[in-house]
Amino acid sequence: MPPAFSLPEYDARLAKVRAEMSGRGLDALIIGDPNNHNWLTGYDAWSFYTPQIVLVQHDVGPIWMGRQMDSGAAWLTTYLTEDQVRPYPENCVQRDGTHPMEVVGGYLAEMGLDGKVVGYESDTYYFTPKAVASLHAALPNANWVDADLLVNWCRTVKSDAEVAVMREAARLAEGAMAVAYETIEPGMRQCDLVAAVLAQQVGGNDEYSGDLTAVTPLVLAGEAAMTAHPMWTDQPFEAGQTVALELGGARKRYNAGLARTIQLGGGSPTLFDTAKAVEEGLEAVLATVKPGAIAHDVHRAWQDVLDKYDLTKDSRIGYGIGVAYGPDWGEHTVSLRANEQTVLEQNMTIHVMLGMWMDNWGMEMSETTLVTATGVECLTNFPRGVHIPG
Amino acid sequence: MPPAFSLPEYDARLAKVRAEMSGRGLDALIIGDPNNHNWLTGYDAWSFYTPQIVLVQHDVGPIWMGRQMDSGAAWLTTYLTEDQVRPYPENCVQRDGTHPMEVVGGYLAEMGLDGKVVGYESDTYYFTPKAVASLHAALPNANWVDADLLVNWCRTVKSDAEVAVMREAARLAEGAMAVAYETIEPGMRQCDLVAAVLAQQVGGNDEYSGDLTAVTPLVLAGEAAMTAHPMWTDQPFEAGQTVALELGGARKRYNAGLARTIQLGGGSPTLFDTAKAVEEGLEAVLATVKPGAIAHDVHRAWQDVLDKYDLTKDSRIGYGIGVAYGPDWGEHTVSLRANEQTVLEQNMTIHVMLGMWMDNWGMEMSETTLVTATGVECLTNFPRGVHIPG
Repeated sequence: MPPAFSLPEYDARLAKVRAEMSGRGLDALIIGDPNNHNWLTGYDAWSFYTPQIVLVQHDVGPIWMGRQMDSGAAWLTTYLTEDQVRPYPENCVQRDGTHPMEVVGGYLAEMGLDGKVVGYESDTYYFTPKAVASLHAALPNANWVDADLLVNWCRTVKSDAEVAVMREAARLAEGAMAVAYETIEPGMRQCDLVAAVLAQQVGGNDEYSGDLTAVTPLVLAGEAAMTAHPMWTDQPFEAGQTVALELGGARKRYNAGLARTIQLGGGSPTLFDTAKAVEEGLEAVLATVKPGAIAHDVHRAWQDVLDKYDLTKDSRIGYGIGVAYGPDWGEHTVSLRANEQTVLEQNMTIHVMLGMWMDNWGMEMSETTLVTATGVECLTNFPRGVHIPG
Repeated sequence: MPPAFSLPEYDARLAKVRAEMSGRGLDALIIGDPNNHNWLTGYDAWSFYTPQIVLVQHDVGPIWMGRQMDSGAAWLTTYLTEDQVRPYPENCVQRDGTHPMEVVGGYLAEMGLDGKVVGYESDTYYFTPKAVASLHAALPNANWVDADLLVNWCRTVKSDAEVAVMREAARLAEGAMAVAYETIEPGMRQCDLVAAVLAQQVGGNDEYSGDLTAVTPLVLAGEAAMTAHPMWTDQPFEAGQTVALELGGARKRYNAGLARTIQLGGGSPTLFDTAKAVEEGLEAVLATVKPGAIAHDVHRAWQDVLDKYDLTKDSRIGYGIGVAYGPDWGEHTVSLRANEQTVLEQNMTIHVMLGMWMDNWGMEMSETTLVTATGVECLTNFPRGVHIPG
């Protein structure tokens, strides 16, 4: 089971990271984010619930350091060689009075990193205050530099090979939404809809399978639609309910999001008017996205439409999306929002997510998009209007 | 949608936490772990990918502080009242140069926490170094005390109501494994087996549905079985393969784990001999577990069997299990392992997990267990022997 991409692709990614490290004067970079581990080395396992890092230096290849029982996953899924895998022993896992990063800190000290300029990720899941403090204690003379999101920013512009995988993820997302459209009806339990969606997302099609999406399938039905991220229940859908679904697809850990809204009969003029305004807003956004566009200006195009219809939305309307295990598929980099000065570039992938969470109902419409040489392409292709089954 | 348990149950949980806080001289406790948020307040949403805490003090009720667009989930799923929900605005989410915990730190300062003794969780997912540093900066005169796992330890002994939910989770785990046993065959893609398992886990039965398990379904087939936590692929199962499955069920966020091994025809004497030894070891463990037993001694009973058969296993053989979103369903408290002095108590729930990851193959056998008044009960009930389909 070779890594998901070619060796030259991984070499190019590593070169990008090292160039950024050089720009910041970093001798070494300690990466805690499993999404970044995957992107840099191919490493793919459900092992990030125990502490695990990848160390990048300039003169030797990346080194994975993690739990003994997971070191086999490095052999199976990465291009790393024997000297690039440094496991810590099982007896320090979740044991009172010690921490695996104390052992790893010892490895780093042996490698001569004390006294060096060492970057680390300060705000990523799975790399905790205690983990970082353990490393700091092991390298007391290092110059510790917050390099949070350094790798994430390197990930924003996708290679053509990554775009191809994102297209497959988008196919999986469309398949999941299609299953929902075909099966939802009043009286069906929310959990049974999600069961069908999950089976489709993971079973995929004859050519390829899927992974679980980094954001879990979200079902916003009835009053739960007033909030953005409710969990499904075993309650049945009801006639007359507005149901917003935020689903997606994941292929080789790359995620595509897709949100749509369903009306189970009836439906107020307010819903349909809002949906029409949101679709107009989406079109305004898509007309603005291109290389060189500023995130702030893209949001402005959306806001102009909202103003026309006297609607408000406080949250951002899009974000970079790509490789992710969860709980977030966003890359924590590009945000389409007022006062964001990020310049869009070709081959960025952005989830344009228009969620309107009102007082007692809600609706959603989203597309996973690719910034092209001249504009934008929706990777997801699915009818946008409010769906009325039957 | 009321919280999953009764108000007196939540009151009892809060009292447990406050008693422990008093014992450690804490005026306040800042909880970052979403599992603990759920356990203390009922809060249930896929919102923990942005910073979110629950603050516990002695004189006022717990306060949820999180993202604006997720505050509706507090109304929907908890017993908290309006003054116990303090959202931060959308514009600080994943924005360069600021952090939501700076806003939350301001709330804490307003509430008079500067100068107080404040406990916090130092080693939990989703509560990052930057988050903690932001709070420290906002309360420079507080006495910060590492209170990691304080709440987790309160969770180890389950109430009878929690045990009832764990029993439902165990039913879902059995259902998932039954589906795997019924459908697996050479030529079936791994992803298609997982699709069927997920649909069963979430669709549940006529009485209740399931959640996604905190640990994703793990398929250890062929050479991938040499490592503990590989991800499924779209490769077909092969005749003669040994396949270990670590599955589970989750009900109201409570997890039960269940691992078994399947042999797709053939099978070496080594496999069957190992399985027999592991089953004998499991029985030795179960004969030792009871209130008052020491974790070390339980492990000793296992080790004695391994020694007899000249087998080795470096990793622990069990851990506390319960409410969890992921990526881990373990509670990070009780571990069955050499030199662990934890005393087992009635109503602890422990996943006894016997994974043998060998050089080029592996096998697993596990049970989710309940410590009873006099011994142990397996909550999961499923045939233990290596399954040979067809």
